[in-house]
Amino acid sequence: MVLFRRLLGDVLRARRVERGLTLRQVSQEARVSLGYISEIERGQKEASSELLASLCGALEVPLSSVLRSVSDAVALEEAALGSAVDRAVAEVTATPLAVGRVAEDVVASAA
Amino acid sequence: MVLFRRLLGDVLRARRVERGLTLRQVSQEARVSLGYISEIERGQKEASSELLASLCGALEVPLSSVLRSVSDAVALEEAALGSAVDRAVAEVTATPLAVGRVAEDVVASAA
Repeated sequence: MVLFRRLLGDVLRARRVERGLTLRQVSQEARVSLGYISEIERGQKEASSELLASLCGALEVPLSSVLRSVSDAVALEEAALGSAVDRAVAEVTATPLAVGRVAEDVVASAA
Repeated sequence: MVLFRRLLGDVLRARRVERGLTLRQVSQEARVSLGYISEIERGQKEASSELLASLCGALEVPLSSVLRSVSDAVALEEAALGSAVDRAVAEVTATPLAVGRVAEDVVASAA
């Protein structure tokens, strides 16, 4: 399952590092505890919409730009998950199914 | 302040209506109470990341696509807010400031 908060955390951390800001600076600017921001960046806590707006303000990045980056990261994970499922299906269909072999054995021994 | 949950709610409702689904159908498919989904669509409740994934699954839309639409809607609101601020600034700078007139009056009566 692709979780929004995990990729949001990745994007928020990347934007903060890009701007050369410490957790402490963002914490003071956004008036949110340092520990809470750290948990959000690690995808361990959900950020309320008010907190998200506040963090974007402190990072001086538009919320739309953060969401666009999260959408791109989610799309990459969705594609990777899709490929993994495709490979698994291809592997299963390329290999004789164990259940098929069992059925053939049953038919052979009955004949 | 542009709130993520309000625009997320708008997008989720639009996607549900596009697919011709009722709140009840989405509620059963996503195993979330009807009232809760309704509150999310109206932007009154935050959706956890797990619930958001579940709703997208029930609507058969990729999370990335929902987030892209929310990002676009947020960008429109940010632009509208930006224009409103620009207009207000233009109005203030085009009008002689009351405080300026008061200061002139003070200087004139002192002379």
